[in-house]
Amino acid sequence: MKIDKEFMTDEAKDLLAKDTLLKKAYEEVKKSICSPIWPIESEIFSINNTEKNCNGVVPIKELCYSMLEDTYNWFREKPLDVLKLEKKKGGPIDVYKEFVFEQSKDSNLYTVIRRVGMEFETGNISSAHRSMNKLLLGLGREEINLAIILMPIKELAYYLTDRVTNFEELEPYFEIAEGQPFIFIGFNADAYNPNVPLIPKGKDGMSNRSIKRWKDHVDKNL
Amino acid sequence: MKIDKEFMTDEAKDLLAKDTLLKKAYEEVKKSICSPIWPIESEIFSINNTEKNCNGVVPIKELCYSMLEDTYNWFREKPLDVLKLEKKKGGPIDVYKEFVFEQSKDSNLYTVIRRVGMEFETGNISSAHRSMNKLLLGLGREEINLAIILMPIKELAYYLTDRVTNFEELEPYFEIAEGQPFIFIGFNADAYNPNVPLIPKGKDGMSNRSIKRWKDHVDKNL
Repeated sequence: MKIDKEFMTDEAKDLLAKDTLLKKAYEEVKKSICSPIWPIESEIFSINNTEKNCNGVVPIKELCYSMLEDTYNWFREKPLDVLKLEKKKGGPIDVYKEFVFEQSKDSNLYTVIRRVGMEFETGNISSAHRSMNKLLLGLGREEINLAIILMPIKELAYYLTDRVTNFEELEPYFEIAEGQPFIFIGFNADAYNPNVPLIPKGKDGMSNRSIKRWKDHVDKNL
Repeated sequence: MKIDKEFMTDEAKDLLAKDTLLKKAYEEVKKSICSPIWPIESEIFSINNTEKNCNGVVPIKELCYSMLEDTYNWFREKPLDVLKLEKKKGGPIDVYKEFVFEQSKDSNLYTVIRRVGMEFETGNISSAHRSMNKLLLGLGREEINLAIILMPIKELAYYLTDRVTNFEELEPYFEIAEGQPFIFIGFNADAYNPNVPLIPKGKDGMSNRSIKRWKDHVDKNL
C-alpha cells in the first residue's frame, strides 16, 4: 500500500517539526498503513479491479491495525473520558497509543506523555464526520495531542465495499480541524490488477487474532 | 410543539444579545418549530405513543419549514460557495435567510447583511455530524453568521422514524462548535396521547406544496 494524499493542519505540521514523540507516532502510522500486501505472497498491494465494490475493506484495516498493535504497541478501543465518564455515551477511539519519555531538565526528571488517537474509516461519509468530531472532541479536551484519520483515496474506494468513504469526499471539511493538530491520510493500492484474488468482505476468511484492547492493558496495570 | 432543550455557544449568546437581526432570525426559528400542531384540528401538538418508531418525522419538518418559507421568507437548499464553487462537492444547507438592514452612520448609509443557516435533522446520528460540520464550514468561511440545528429530544424521537437522531445523542459534541455562533434546539411534543392519529412516514399524505428554493430566488433577481 502507499500514501497518495495527505492533509495536515498547521498545528500538526508545527508539532511534527518539534516533537520527536509525535513524529514517531506519525512514522508508525505511515509504516502500518503502507504494510499491507495483496495477494499474501506478493511484495506489493495489488487490488482486483474487475468491477465496482468487488473487494472488502475491513481486512485492509485489520492488517494495518495488526502492525500498530503487534509491532508498535498501540491499543484498540480507547474510550475518551469526556464521552465515557462525563457524557456517558459514545464509542471509543479505534486505535490509541501513549508515548512516554523521561526528560531531565535543571537536574530534575520529568515524564513527558504524548497521546495519539487514530481512526481507519471503513464506514460511509457521514460516519467519517462522526469519527472526525470524536477526535476533535478528544483534542479539545486535551485527552489526545494528535489525531489521524486514514481513508482510501477515491480511485481505490471505487473497488472497495459499497459506500465506504474516501479522502476526497471528506476533504472539503478538513479545514474545520484547523486550530487542532489533525492529519488526514489517503492511501492507495500499489497496483490495479484484474487477475489478483478479491479481498473478502467483512471478516470472512480472516484469522481470529486477539486484539490488544486498551481496557485489558489498563486492567493489567492496576 | 415546544422547545425543551437548548445549547448555545458563548459566541451565539453574545450575538443574540447585541445583534437585532440575528435575534430576529432566532425568534423566527423558534416560532416556526413551535408552530406544528397535531392532529390538524387541534390546538397543541400531540404525538401517538402506542409503540416505538410509530410516527414519521418528515411531516413535522415540513410544517416547520412551511412557516419559515411562507411567513418569514426563508429559502430552501442554499449551496455554500465553499462546497459548490470551490470544492465542487457536498449538498446545500436546508434552510437559509439573509437579513438586510440599512443603517445610517456619520451621515452615510450602510447595508448590513446577516446570513443564517439551519438544518432540521431527520437522519441518523452520523448524518447529524455531517450537518453540523457543513454549518461549521459555512461559519468558518463567513458565508453564514449564525448556525442552528433542530432535533427532537430523545423522549419524542422514540416514537418517530427509526434511528432519527435526537438532541441528547449529539449533545456530547456540541462543545466542538465553541468559538463559532451555533445554537442547538431540542423540541418536544406538547402531549403524548395513544388516541391521536399516527403521523405518516416519508412524504405520504402530505400536500404537494411548492418550496421556495434559493436557486429560484437568485435566478429571479439576476
